[in-house]
Amino acid sequence: MGFVKTPVKGMNDFLPREMALRQKVLAMIREKYASFGFREIETPCMEHIENLTGKQGGENEKLIFKVLKRGAALSRALEKGDELADSGMRYDLTLPLSRFYAANSAVLPAPFKALQIGNVWRADQPQKGRFRQFTQCDIDILGDGSVLAEIELIGATAGMLETIFSKTDLSSFTVHVNDRRILRAMALCAGLPEESLEEVFIILDKLDKIGVEGVRSELCEMGLSAEAVERYTAVFDKPIPATVAEFCTGLEEHLPAGVAQGLDTILFCTAKSLGETARIVFDPTLVRGMGYYTGTIFEVKLDEYNFSIAGGGRYDEMIGKFAGQNTPACGFSIGFERIITILKEHGKDELFADGGVAMLVEGGASEEKLEEVFATAAALRAEGKCVTVLPLKKNAKFQIDRLMEDGFTDIRRIYNK
Amino acid sequence: MGFVKTPVKGMNDFLPREMALRQKVLAMIREKYASFGFREIETPCMEHIENLTGKQGGENEKLIFKVLKRGAALSRALEKGDELADSGMRYDLTLPLSRFYAANSAVLPAPFKALQIGNVWRADQPQKGRFRQFTQCDIDILGDGSVLAEIELIGATAGMLETIFSKTDLSSFTVHVNDRRILRAMALCAGLPEESLEEVFIILDKLDKIGVEGVRSELCEMGLSAEAVERYTAVFDKPIPATVAEFCTGLEEHLPAGVAQGLDTILFCTAKSLGETARIVFDPTLVRGMGYYTGTIFEVKLDEYNFSIAGGGRYDEMIGKFAGQNTPACGFSIGFERIITILKEHGKDELFADGGVAMLVEGGASEEKLEEVFATAAALRAEGKCVTVLPLKKNAKFQIDRLMEDGFTDIRRIYNK
Repeated sequence: MGFVKTPVKGMNDFLPREMALRQKVLAMIREKYASFGFREIETPCMEHIENLTGKQGGENEKLIFKVLKRGAALSRALEKGDELADSGMRYDLTLPLSRFYAANSAVLPAPFKALQIGNVWRADQPQKGRFRQFTQCDIDILGDGSVLAEIELIGATAGMLETIFSKTDLSSFTVHVNDRRILRAMALCAGLPEESLEEVFIILDKLDKIGVEGVRSELCEMGLSAEAVERYTAVFDKPIPATVAEFCTGLEEHLPAGVAQGLDTILFCTAKSLGETARIVFDPTLVRGMGYYTGTIFEVKLDEYNFSIAGGGRYDEMIGKFAGQNTPACGFSIGFERIITILKEHGKDELFADGGVAMLVEGGASEEKLEEVFATAAALRAEGKCVTVLPLKKNAKFQIDRLMEDGFTDIRRIYNK
Repeated sequence: MGFVKTPVKGMNDFLPREMALRQKVLAMIREKYASFGFREIETPCMEHIENLTGKQGGENEKLIFKVLKRGAALSRALEKGDELADSGMRYDLTLPLSRFYAANSAVLPAPFKALQIGNVWRADQPQKGRFRQFTQCDIDILGDGSVLAEIELIGATAGMLETIFSKTDLSSFTVHVNDRRILRAMALCAGLPEESLEEVFIILDKLDKIGVEGVRSELCEMGLSAEAVERYTAVFDKPIPATVAEFCTGLEEHLPAGVAQGLDTILFCTAKSLGETARIVFDPTLVRGMGYYTGTIFEVKLDEYNFSIAGGGRYDEMIGKFAGQNTPACGFSIGFERIITILKEHGKDELFADGGVAMLVEGGASEEKLEEVFATAAALRAEGKCVTVLPLKKNAKFQIDRLMEDGFTDIRRIYNK
């Protein structure tokens, strides 16, 4: 009958234990972000095809799952060789947020602090840790051009990560902060030409992997002057001064006033709010890939891992393209799937497992017996316990083993005597 | 630039107030069902196209949103005139559950109690209360052929509805219970022919709308013997006896032994567990539309409304078709969107709104001032309060009005003096 048991390629079935972990982490995320005044919103999983292919999504636009037109519209499209899709699955939560804000800003508070948790889809080649349907979790502040936005975003995210990882031995992490305008000023003041910057930053972004020497030689291969490259990269060898303002001395020609001071305020106020397991540092080598960032950028790394588990920044020019009026915007996106993978790899899903009482009832019980069973179950549930009432199977040992694997710790057999 | 601000036709953007209501109701649902030992699982939103079009979904199969093949596979399909889609959006959670169980039953406990909460998609004509993307919320017990399954399903759902509606004045509701086999035996014993039953039940299902007389005349229009119709419908005029067993006296020829007694046990044990605002009744006129039910069927109606807000039943023959081995199954699906609509219509979303403290900071604050602000915010958050820190806008009155609409009750302005 052609029935396929496996999920669609690159997508996952979540069994109860993994699902309990996911739901508990999501509940922690919701609780923490709510305490910072972020309000959850939701947009449909599908967007108009013209929005998705409007060149705001960069490489992700190649990976869109398109949804076929239906009925007469499909026949017409096939006949005329037109676009066959009228919508597609969203590939991120930023584009839908822009559309949402354009549609609803008149009834939203300003600034608006949004939390979005939802699935996104990308028809990428599946590989370890990369799925075709995955959960994204974004907070964004729209309409606040001040550093308060960065302080709230970083404080909320760091606080949330501290809560999640406090249950584990993976607890320490570092928030790296930089500003696109400082990156730019450093390059220009060193004598690198404006038109080379995009490529320069792509190379600098590989610093972790190829080291300062590697960056130097790749920059020279670009045909940039060896002298300018030397001046540019020298700074990455040196220790970083105590303040961003001090670091930026000499960059004034290409750096707007107040940028360094703003970053110092963000660092100062955020450091105060962090617990013992988190640090925040100015990292002049931090690049972040997305082209749409216009100011501050930030990234969180667990100290044991070399990849980021959260990242974001300011993108003051994006919402305006959709909403028609300029709106400062700043966001932080946590790598939900990465966090889940790390917790699973370290066996920390156990910490999130449900316990419970299983009452196994022998077949043929009288109504009185059942009344007693369900009264006991109700009383235990009223105490906050999880209780399941099930028929006792012939192979009781097998049944009980499975229930214990499933997290039930108190297993009671009820016989008719 | 062809950018569309509205969501895709028939789908919704959820603003913070509605989203808070939805999330809080979902949290209540998760908590209650977890306390009954239901374990949440999740399947991808897309399924293989061959699974979705395998004739298990009835009318819903006409409403599938199909997902286009990509790359070379699409070119080939266009060239050859083959199926253009390789997957589609799920139209319910029952088919994915069947596939999930077929793929994973070896590692799941038996019986398996599943909770699924997720979006489904149907390309229906949108109308009031009917959307093209909506949330379903199903519990199912697979592998339990005993009445314990029904008692747990009904007890959990009734308990959950009592919790949700306890905050409102819409609190009283009735659980209607019947058995497909009783419906069948009544019709056969009255002399209606086996092959007429499907159509007979469709007519009986309209009893609420057209009354007993209406049912009688529609049955006669079918060409059934007036005598048999009279015998069949007479029972719907009479009061219902105290027990199902008594009601079923005389139906023995067409009713398997134990069915009536089983239903009495379900009624007896469930009634004991209900609070003051819920009732459970045997309703021999309850039909429920889905063709796949094989035994008990049930439905919940709020006493003020004439439509059901939850429904389900036993479908012992469905999982086997997918999994290859017979598996008794029983499920209860709540009308999540209907419940949300009712709560909204009665203004009960207020009861679920977030409160909070808004700290509005005048521009140009010193680092010391900001340190103080964020320390206060952290202290209030540690007390469990929701606190947002925002720049004070020039039009403070407008800003504050919006924040109060958004649920903030304690608004503080922080000036630099």
